[in-house]
Amino acid sequence: MTTGTESTADHLRAALDGPWGAVREQARVQLAGDEFSGDPALDLGAARARVLDQMRAITSLGLPEMGFRREHGGTGEPGAAVVGLEMLAYADLSLWVKAGVQWGLFGGAVENLGTERHREFIKQLISLELLGCFAMTESGHGSDVAHLETTATYDASTQEFVIHSPTPSARKDYIGGAAEHARMAAVFAQLITGDGAGHGVHCLLVPIRDENGADLPGVTTSDDGRKGGLPGVDNGRIVFDHVRIPRENLLNRYADVDPDGTYTSEIENPSRRFFTTLGTLVRGRVSVGGAAAAGARVALSIAVRYALKRRQFDDPDTGRETVLLDYRSHQRRLLPLVAKSYALAFAQNDLVRRMHLVQTGQDLDPGAQRALEKRAAGLKVAQTKHATRAIQECREACGGAGYLTENRLVTLKADTDVFTTFEGDNVVLTQLVAKELLTSYSDEVRDLDALGWVRFAATMAGDVVRKRSGVRQLIQTLKDRSDDTVDDGDLARRSTQLGLFADREDYLVRTAGHRLRARASDTSPFEAFNNAQDHILTAGSAHIDRLVLEAFIEDIALIQDPEARDLAETVCDLFVYSTLEENLDWYIMHRFMSVERAKAVRRGVNELVDRLRPDALTLVEGLGVPESMLRAALLDDASVFDREAGVAQAEPEKASVD
Amino acid sequence: MTTGTESTADHLRAALDGPWGAVREQARVQLAGDEFSGDPALDLGAARARVLDQMRAITSLGLPEMGFRREHGGTGEPGAAVVGLEMLAYADLSLWVKAGVQWGLFGGAVENLGTERHREFIKQLISLELLGCFAMTESGHGSDVAHLETTATYDASTQEFVIHSPTPSARKDYIGGAAEHARMAAVFAQLITGDGAGHGVHCLLVPIRDENGADLPGVTTSDDGRKGGLPGVDNGRIVFDHVRIPRENLLNRYADVDPDGTYTSEIENPSRRFFTTLGTLVRGRVSVGGAAAAGARVALSIAVRYALKRRQFDDPDTGRETVLLDYRSHQRRLLPLVAKSYALAFAQNDLVRRMHLVQTGQDLDPGAQRALEKRAAGLKVAQTKHATRAIQECREACGGAGYLTENRLVTLKADTDVFTTFEGDNVVLTQLVAKELLTSYSDEVRDLDALGWVRFAATMAGDVVRKRSGVRQLIQTLKDRSDDTVDDGDLARRSTQLGLFADREDYLVRTAGHRLRARASDTSPFEAFNNAQDHILTAGSAHIDRLVLEAFIEDIALIQDPEARDLAETVCDLFVYSTLEENLDWYIMHRFMSVERAKAVRRGVNELVDRLRPDALTLVEGLGVPESMLRAALLDDASVFDREAGVAQAEPEKASVD
Repeated sequence: MTTGTESTADHLRAALDGPWGAVREQARVQLAGDEFSGDPALDLGAARARVLDQMRAITSLGLPEMGFRREHGGTGEPGAAVVGLEMLAYADLSLWVKAGVQWGLFGGAVENLGTERHREFIKQLISLELLGCFAMTESGHGSDVAHLETTATYDASTQEFVIHSPTPSARKDYIGGAAEHARMAAVFAQLITGDGAGHGVHCLLVPIRDENGADLPGVTTSDDGRKGGLPGVDNGRIVFDHVRIPRENLLNRYADVDPDGTYTSEIENPSRRFFTTLGTLVRGRVSVGGAAAAGARVALSIAVRYALKRRQFDDPDTGRETVLLDYRSHQRRLLPLVAKSYALAFAQNDLVRRMHLVQTGQDLDPGAQRALEKRAAGLKVAQTKHATRAIQECREACGGAGYLTENRLVTLKADTDVFTTFEGDNVVLTQLVAKELLTSYSDEVRDLDALGWVRFAATMAGDVVRKRSGVRQLIQTLKDRSDDTVDDGDLARRSTQLGLFADREDYLVRTAGHRLRARASDTSPFEAFNNAQDHILTAGSAHIDRLVLEAFIEDIALIQDPEARDLAETVCDLFVYSTLEENLDWYIMHRFMSVERAKAVRRGVNELVDRLRPDALTLVEGLGVPESMLRAALLDDASVFDREAGVAQAEPEKASVD
Repeated sequence: MTTGTESTADHLRAALDGPWGAVREQARVQLAGDEFSGDPALDLGAARARVLDQMRAITSLGLPEMGFRREHGGTGEPGAAVVGLEMLAYADLSLWVKAGVQWGLFGGAVENLGTERHREFIKQLISLELLGCFAMTESGHGSDVAHLETTATYDASTQEFVIHSPTPSARKDYIGGAAEHARMAAVFAQLITGDGAGHGVHCLLVPIRDENGADLPGVTTSDDGRKGGLPGVDNGRIVFDHVRIPRENLLNRYADVDPDGTYTSEIENPSRRFFTTLGTLVRGRVSVGGAAAAGARVALSIAVRYALKRRQFDDPDTGRETVLLDYRSHQRRLLPLVAKSYALAFAQNDLVRRMHLVQTGQDLDPGAQRALEKRAAGLKVAQTKHATRAIQECREACGGAGYLTENRLVTLKADTDVFTTFEGDNVVLTQLVAKELLTSYSDEVRDLDALGWVRFAATMAGDVVRKRSGVRQLIQTLKDRSDDTVDDGDLARRSTQLGLFADREDYLVRTAGHRLRARASDTSPFEAFNNAQDHILTAGSAHIDRLVLEAFIEDIALIQDPEARDLAETVCDLFVYSTLEENLDWYIMHRFMSVERAKAVRRGVNELVDRLRPDALTLVEGLGVPESMLRAALLDDASVFDREAGVAQAEPEKASVD
């Protein structure tokens, strides 16, 4: 797609678009119209109705099919599906969530946990003939899925499952679609067979509403009502009172119950079965991270463009008012976030590619699925955290204008806010990532509780946990590739930078074991674990940072255009320096950095924002949100916000409150 | 008011209530009813109408009068007025803003900038017979008030001022009350007398609506529409097309125009006149900081109480699920914010007391007004920043429940979000604080632009800027007071702690001059200033931190009850340690702290959250938000969120996704 007439921004956008760039390009055209945008003026009912209409319009765009296998009526392109649906986030995040619930979570459960006998539902759910919801979370248990309380008890006499909510906290909650639109729920429940034996959490399809939208017998739905954002999503609650469904409604890919009530599963280990079941749903986490990052890109596109127009306070050199982005403080608040958006976009592309290879059977490495889950969890955390921070900063960087709904930033903030805690709470997911690092990917210890974990740590050798030949090799390659003669310690060298990220991760993972053991003898296992929790979480974050930098480095190498590549290199430097700056205390305290080098990092951030300032517009154009999809009034109201002279005629006195 | 039956929480609450505790206690009773709460289900029109009704109800509570002088029909208690109105923030922040606009900003302008001839308006505005708005900000200029574009040109032939918006960016914008309710505006405009001479920004009373709410001739109001929050406040825009008002409508306390068009003022220096005018409005900034902190206290009260009920994941020692606040990560995310809320509450009480003394003429120190403005700016920044961060953290700490409007956190977040940028943008205000520090309170340099500033810095001697005998004296007093024999470096000693805060501030202020000079010879003044901007902002923040700690230390000494005082001491330690932790890199890099001491700080935070954990409920009770005013459904829904056992009957397998 490269032609001689493309700008630097075009080249950057193509690089960020990644392997499914054509899908993104097509979506930019398909979704540009007003009909796909959100309308904050609508009340809840109208907002939900609008999103449902938009869903129906999307069924004709070819997007939903991509997520399903050919034999199920799809086109078998999971990577394209994630990327294509992510583009909905530029239009409206309620629409993205609604689509994600229907085709990603509900559809994904039926496709990945169901079998031949559930195939009929897939065509119906692609076309929206069947609207579904994903009823996993309960009021009492969100992060701790294994302890869900809803029961599915098999009754051999009628060959039915009885779905029941035994306690108030067993109520399904926050379920998108449950309040109004969903006719069927993919319900996660404790499976119990006739002899009273429990088999853990399984997923079953439970019809919840009739054709007229009325609750079916035994089902009581209710509305979660207003939320911080996402007004177009009808989140609700479901309580089951001994609801009977046919035996066949168990999604039986990994386990089944025979008519006589015999439970069978190909996977012997109940824990492995549980994680295999959840593992098939990884696409949800991959998608949330992507949509959060997309929201951040929209916000940064608005705030940087505004900062390039808006003037405030005189520059004594020119007598003109100064453009906001010429202030150091404004550069420092926005440009490192732009750099991080680049870094995360590359990391997300890498993640989607890996997911696509695993889910289309092209990656047959037995550890691939598990590595994918860890990476998806880590990048979900990184991207949702980034979105919360970046959008908040953008709102504030636009002052009073940023607070008006017509300028979209507050809507982006409100809509993305839940992303840090849904599809896995960020704290819990960071801990999951860290545990994976600590346990050296060993199946046996994955599901340890605090007790088992502390015991395990006691036997853990320092370097057993390091399976990191990959990063060492990349560092060596980077050293070999560079032919300058600067000494090994030069901070500007990519190998030094990656080395610093990897050293931090290694050190934190290695010493986490010590922290766990430190108080194991004089306190309870929970206390020993808890005593190390902050350390463990930091290790998880350090790992995620390293993955992101690796992806950035690898993707820069693929940029052909020299100007675009040079610019991307500087952006990568800013990402590295500002990430190092956030952890300067750690680097100095653990002797990985001298005080002098730490000061060089801080100076470096200032130098890099200075250097990138002239390319700020190119950089946000490269982020790839089309101007027509920004929908922020302040960018169109040039006579008000983009004053060229704009000082009152009578202004004799020098006085300001800056 | 102390009796033997009071709990530790009662003593803490009394300490935090400060000098106008009786006003707070009364307001807790007066405002507890449903009639003063917000109702997120209302549409914009209904929300605005509800708040206006609430305003009318408040006029009978005795609160509004307190802010006005006796001769104007008030009771002359500005401190009580700020504190009393702040309590509205517990009920609903839209109501607080609406009250602040009417009685604080509009009323304050009339009372403080007007004279005898405007007295009639004050009674009317107290009783709401006259609804007003405060029309300072324009679309083109917010922070840079001196450059407002609206003109007020005197026409001697008719003895009128002509109010005009000469450009699109001269439009008044974001003005609370302008969209619907206000009949009169206090308009800030460039005053021009008949001979065409400009006299800078002055304030004039301009009627904008008739009795029926229709725009008066030449006035065009419009609606800012939906915002991130504050739905009950009718923010709007005003454009003036040669609107004529009587000469007497100039608020003429500091300057006047004679009938023949002669401009007179007691204050010769135009810059000093401008700052004197703005200085009288300091109460607005004092109030915003207080309301932001109040919002944070509500959020922390909800999140900590929830964290004490909500359980998730098994504790292997007990077999029961673990209460959220028993997790180290959860303690670390919430308890330092509670500690900071304590610190800021004491600092705010100190600020309000100072404001009261200045505004009632009890503090006649000529520098007091100016010092008050600096302190108000600094604490406005600290408290609004704290609110944004704390409420966000509380939302996330409550997971999916935190995202539901019925649990209030998202409303608090949305409503307070604009506080960081209104009544002075936080970046601009931090810079103002830093400039004041740098210029050693010298009138002459206060209004320097970048050029003058860099010139000034070139002549500035290292220690001219240090007017800090106060803090040195306090440190010495603390050393004398303590009779333990631990060496001077003991981090647990208050004198050492305050010394670290003060050293940081001193060093940053002293070296800011170097930074400004560093590039003065090889670059333009703006560049030289800009090159130092991040340093200057850090100096401002360090100053604010020191002020807050001083206030905390001084107020602890006043707590009589030994248990409450001990607890407050530990809370103060946590505030100190967590603030030091945020700046660890700086302390090590500038050799104020060894690596070993830095590690002790980090460990100290962990130890302190551990130690405070058992008192968490006492601490939030001490914050002083009555349970009846929390209005978060999750606190009432015990059967769902506060499960005692709550695990499904059938749960044979150990498996979790934590």
